[in-house]
Amino acid sequence: MTGFFEDIEIGPVIELGSHAFTSDEIISFAQRFDPQPFHLSEEAARESLFGHLCASGWHTACVWMRLMTAYHTQLRDEIAVEGGRVPNYGPSPGIHDLTWPAPVYVNDVVRFTTQVRKKRELRSRPHWGVIESYNEGINQDGAAVLRFYGNLFVERRESSPESNGVSAES
Amino acid sequence: MTGFFEDIEIGPVIELGSHAFTSDEIISFAQRFDPQPFHLSEEAARESLFGHLCASGWHTACVWMRLMTAYHTQLRDEIAVEGGRVPNYGPSPGIHDLTWPAPVYVNDVVRFTTQVRKKRELRSRPHWGVIESYNEGINQDGAAVLRFYGNLFVERRESSPESNGVSAES
Repeated sequence: MTGFFEDIEIGPVIELGSHAFTSDEIISFAQRFDPQPFHLSEEAARESLFGHLCASGWHTACVWMRLMTAYHTQLRDEIAVEGGRVPNYGPSPGIHDLTWPAPVYVNDVVRFTTQVRKKRELRSRPHWGVIESYNEGINQDGAAVLRFYGNLFVERRESSPESNGVSAES
Repeated sequence: MTGFFEDIEIGPVIELGSHAFTSDEIISFAQRFDPQPFHLSEEAARESLFGHLCASGWHTACVWMRLMTAYHTQLRDEIAVEGGRVPNYGPSPGIHDLTWPAPVYVNDVVRFTTQVRKKRELRSRPHWGVIESYNEGINQDGAAVLRFYGNLFVERRESSPESNGVSAES
């Protein structure tokens, strides 16, 4: 695994690490970005559909992003130590079917994963490919709390040979 | 407009407000949740596909969430002042087709909107309906920087009459 588009395998589930959601962190994120009663206090949450204080869904997604970025950074660092050329990761063409099947409550420990499902070369951008991944967060009881499909530009080790002069997106 | 499911109109584009993305805020969000080079420093961003320092896509989405929550809070506050029953907003059944068509660069001012596109009653939960909204962020040059479809549980003023004893999700 070197992290370039050509080397990325379809199939294996990659463990990105776990995160424990503390009460302080849940409230602090919510105060800044999602100040709904059930994300701000246990008392208000008791009267809501959730029953208990729980994390903003955006918070859960952002923690996935942090762990995903840490995984890519580690990959790049390992290659740099070995003196290899380091792959670049670009923007995301988008995300689909983002759901939060169960709430993340205080002190839940969520294990995050990513799995490459598809790879696509781009005729218009010979230096880049797009990978589609399926991503999950699973709590300590085995329940899914986050699911989505993501797309990401990943640098190719070599430009696609069939891409010369072709400008349409494939 | 009282904010209950029954009163929500399909069609009108609702202005949620604008936000200026400062360099400090872009970097601070990225350090916490998306520490990729092009979100952390202008210098590193110059060598990336983006060309300049730009906000994490999750950051842009989280600012939309904050403005959306502020809109709901204001609605609830206005009803409370008038002594009316205040509607509750529940969890989101999910989001689809979340894209970032253009980057958010330093000092971009993004105007956020939401528009209800569909309303759906739930047989299994007579006190709630689901609204589907189309959401956008548009920068000062009129370019879309955020687009997604969201779903949200909204309280009904009156329980759906046809819902007695039916437990399947409609």
